[in-house]
Amino acid sequence: HINSPRLWESLMEIAKIGPGVRGGNNRQTLTDEDAEGRHLFARWCEEAGMTVGIDSMGNMFARHEGTDPSLLPVMVGSHLDTQPTGGKYDGVLGVLAGLEIIRTLNDMGIKTKRAIEVVNWTNEEGTRFAPAMLASGVFAGVHTQDWAYAREDAEGKKFGDELKRIGFIGDEPVGARKLHAMFELHIEQGPILEDEKVDIGVVTHGQGLNWLQVTLTGKESHTGSTPMPKRVNAGLGAARITELVNDIAWRFAPHAVGAVGHMDIYPNSRNIIPGKAVFTIDFRHPEKDVITAMEQALRYEGQELIEELGLKMEIEQVGAFDPVKFDETCVAAVRNAAIRLGYSHRDIVSGAGHDACWVNRVAPTAMVMCPCVDGLSHNEDEEISPEWAAAGADVLFHAVVETAEI
Amino acid sequence: HINSPRLWESLMEIAKIGPGVRGGNNRQTLTDEDAEGRHLFARWCEEAGMTVGIDSMGNMFARHEGTDPSLLPVMVGSHLDTQPTGGKYDGVLGVLAGLEIIRTLNDMGIKTKRAIEVVNWTNEEGTRFAPAMLASGVFAGVHTQDWAYAREDAEGKKFGDELKRIGFIGDEPVGARKLHAMFELHIEQGPILEDEKVDIGVVTHGQGLNWLQVTLTGKESHTGSTPMPKRVNAGLGAARITELVNDIAWRFAPHAVGAVGHMDIYPNSRNIIPGKAVFTIDFRHPEKDVITAMEQALRYEGQELIEELGLKMEIEQVGAFDPVKFDETCVAAVRNAAIRLGYSHRDIVSGAGHDACWVNRVAPTAMVMCPCVDGLSHNEDEEISPEWAAAGADVLFHAVVETAEI
Ligand SMILES: NC(=O)NCCC(=O)O
Ligand SMILES: NC(=O)NCCC(=O)O
Repeated sequence: HINSPRLWESLMEIAKIGPGVRGGNNRQTLTDEDAEGRHLFARWCEEAGMTVGIDSMGNMFARHEGTDPSLLPVMVGSHLDTQPTGGKYDGVLGVLAGLEIIRTLNDMGIKTKRAIEVVNWTNEEGTRFAPAMLASGVFAGVHTQDWAYAREDAEGKKFGDELKRIGFIGDEPVGARKLHAMFELHIEQGPILEDEKVDIGVVTHGQGLNWLQVTLTGKESHTGSTPMPKRVNAGLGAARITELVNDIAWRFAPHAVGAVGHMDIYPNSRNIIPGKAVFTIDFRHPEKDVITAMEQALRYEGQELIEELGLKMEIEQVGAFDPVKFDETCVAAVRNAAIRLGYSHRDIVSGAGHDACWVNRVAPTAMVMCPCVDGLSHNEDEEISPEWAAAGADVLFHAVVETAEI
Repeated sequence: HINSPRLWESLMEIAKIGPGVRGGNNRQTLTDEDAEGRHLFARWCEEAGMTVGIDSMGNMFARHEGTDPSLLPVMVGSHLDTQPTGGKYDGVLGVLAGLEIIRTLNDMGIKTKRAIEVVNWTNEEGTRFAPAMLASGVFAGVHTQDWAYAREDAEGKKFGDELKRIGFIGDEPVGARKLHAMFELHIEQGPILEDEKVDIGVVTHGQGLNWLQVTLTGKESHTGSTPMPKRVNAGLGAARITELVNDIAWRFAPHAVGAVGHMDIYPNSRNIIPGKAVFTIDFRHPEKDVITAMEQALRYEGQELIEELGLKMEIEQVGAFDPVKFDETCVAAVRNAAIRLGYSHRDIVSGAGHDACWVNRVAPTAMVMCPCVDGLSHNEDEEISPEWAAAGADVLFHAVVETAEI
């Protein structure tokens, strides 16, 4: 067993950096707060005898050497960045549980054959710079580094410039580090495990995602003196598309989801009919064909709604990943660890995207999930119990150590 | 006749202050640009021999003395502030046409019995600080000055502090200045006059307005891992209310209008179900009972939509004015001027709110309207022709001089 109070203490300690307004965290990627969290993590890793390497995407790899340095390492980790109104566990639990594995091995005086590398992937959340899981995506060869560096936040700041500003452009070429396997522990961010009172989710698949940014163009005019038939209202168009997105998701239920999370209308004045609306659609499903069908429905039916209002619509994809099937051997290692430790468990499909989904393209990968209260995440009220965290970290520990071999 | 090229030249000159991005203006109330516009107006007034007084709400009164100083003055004017993406004529035409009247009287060497005061009312637009027509409202005793000073912009800056910052808190108590009558020239901001090829709108009434700020509270959660039935989506609620507002307006057609012009969703992240939405509804109609019925329909049907989604709704009124019937004598002065000058004209109801609507409560008031291209206003593309401006200013000139008596 890992040292559960120590894990919890570290979780509470790092949560002091970039506090939210309601008990959660705002430690968005490449902010000063993100840098402070990274420095604390690096210090902890060094204190646990690890060597910290950083690649050109800011990904951090803390290496605990194995008895046979010629073997490829086993990676374990997740991300330290948060949503603007995020919780204390989304991502952070997976990184600090990785660190706790090394601390426990140190306590026990055990060395594995393969090195174990605890990793913090840059910009998993994708709020400040779309898309999500940006740096693990570059690591896995899905995006180029140049493209990633050019991503802009809402203020027009570039990812590459901000990474440099906080001092985390490492000298290691991204993707150069090879690995034997990777494991990621994450809170479920959904309600299934808690509802079913199950300790451990054995993640067999991850659902796919499609982010579409829609721009509607209408005509700004006066809300009082423009007769109803003369209006070309981009805000009304945005409302209709928001409703359509919801409708499409329900059509493909129970596994499909869809929502508009980001919306700006222009010029955003009480007495001006909006002349422009820019918003993002998030469609997900475990099967790629269904995601394609959802997008087709949106384009086809959306176009009709939009033309009826006299608006123009442009659609741009700003993020996407295909559904993922995790590696069977790694998944079995997770399942066996849960059985061995006597935790209740079930197979589960991840509703969210994770760095593990990209890494799975370049090495055998699997994930462990633990419940979270009311399925709530991407919310400052996100909560888990120390026991849930301990169970997840224990299963992670056993799966990693079995794969790294003693 | 007024000097039409001179009027046009002044319009183009002041439009250089606070230029927009597409040929219009961004000279929002109490910004540095507003201050610059005010200083230019004051200089022009002094050059035309007038004395400029400023009251404690920043309203500016430039007085052209009459032959009988014991008589109450006739006011003429409008506002110099603009929308964030506003045009060059909305408000500005009415102020500079007032100035042009004085310049013309000077050229002719004519003095009226009553003084003529050219006025610039503070914060007519109401975008930066709701409600619209704030300072004419305080002048007319509709709002208290303390309440007006406490209005906040989106950054939490207070009206009173910003008025002080730009140096326009005058020493004259607001409302102390008495008047015999007021006239306001304004572009129609709607399509009727242009469609019917009519030179002059004789404004007999102004329609009423009701601004409701709606706050919907749901639950922030993950767009990927929250199953559809578990969502409490404030953004979807906002979309449904936006649709309902449009629907209610059409029900009370042809004279009703309704729209949502301002909308913020929180935390506005692509992968978070919005937990909060704040937006403003703008309902208008020439009859007060209909406006009440529109609000009732909104509250009743809105509550149903909102409860279906599990959301909470709060509604706050952030602006309102009753329908207005302008003074018959003043309206007749406008109509007679149009007839005398040979301009085509028709009676019209103002779709927008104007300072004249508030001033009408404390003195006989009327308005003159001229067409604008495609009925477009609150848009940088707002356009009028020099001939339309000249016709409007001529009618204003004759109505004002007749009322001020020679
Ligand atoms: N786990 C997580 O919240 N990842 C962010 C990307 C996503 O929206 O799925
Ligand atoms: N004329 C004008 O645009 N006034 C602003 C107040 C309103 O929205 O009617």
